[in-house]
Amino acid sequence: MDLPELRCIGVLHGDITTCEDAPKNFDISNRKGTLEIYPEYQQGLDGIVPGQTIVVLFWLHRANRDILKVYPRGDRSRGLRGVFATRSPARPNPIAISELKVLAVDGLHLQVSGLDILDGTPILDIKKKLSEPG
Amino acid sequence: MDLPELRCIGVLHGDITTCEDAPKNFDISNRKGTLEIYPEYQQGLDGIVPGQTIVVLFWLHRANRDILKVYPRGDRSRGLRGVFATRSPARPNPIAISELKVLAVDGLHLQVSGLDILDGTPILDIKKKLSEPG
Repeated sequence: MDLPELRCIGVLHGDITTCEDAPKNFDISNRKGTLEIYPEYQQGLDGIVPGQTIVVLFWLHRANRDILKVYPRGDRSRGLRGVFATRSPARPNPIAISELKVLAVDGLHLQVSGLDILDGTPILDIKKKLSEPG
Repeated sequence: MDLPELRCIGVLHGDITTCEDAPKNFDISNRKGTLEIYPEYQQGLDGIVPGQTIVVLFWLHRANRDILKVYPRGDRSRGLRGVFATRSPARPNPIAISELKVLAVDGLHLQVSGLDILDGTPILDIKKKLSEPG
């Protein structure tokens, strides 16, 4: 089946500019940044409030899409593993899932913490966390 | 930024054929089905084992991509909310995140439970759950 094109709903502004500087996962990060959402998607933000945890999908535009085996977290002692058994950024569709804490909401800008994603990365989607009320 | 094309890594076979029959979320579902992965992605499955919980990304090919406000879970009493503050299937990039239990692995076929997704839905990605060891 042919899939339609992705839409870029916004872009991340942060201070992580190299892969070496990126925390290995959002659950061990307290790095802050701003999700800039494009004006045509502003209505979709209605209901997001500070203090909430949101699930954000990013398109990892610098990831290699043709790798199917990796050393998990770069640890060669455990051998190669299929990318679908890991959370490696390298995969056929390099979509990252981050759970981020909303610090502030200012129109099209959401200040968040918990980032493990490079500055300039396109945003695909924001969802309510399953365990959040509402 | 223009985003590259998604790749369809496989397809879901299940017994949910209408939206009315679909559970509202995977966390309240015990429906079973099979993830059929296409042969060119088989190497990526190495390391997925029965008993594990995996995170599966689906492309909701029947969802409306032009809606930005919804009644959460169809409940009109609470008013409209932005799609990014919900887990509605309708959203600019209709990507669903499901946590599924792996019941069996047979080559390119993964038997899973916990489905809330329609039969025939394209699969985009499989990831290790963050809280799983490994």
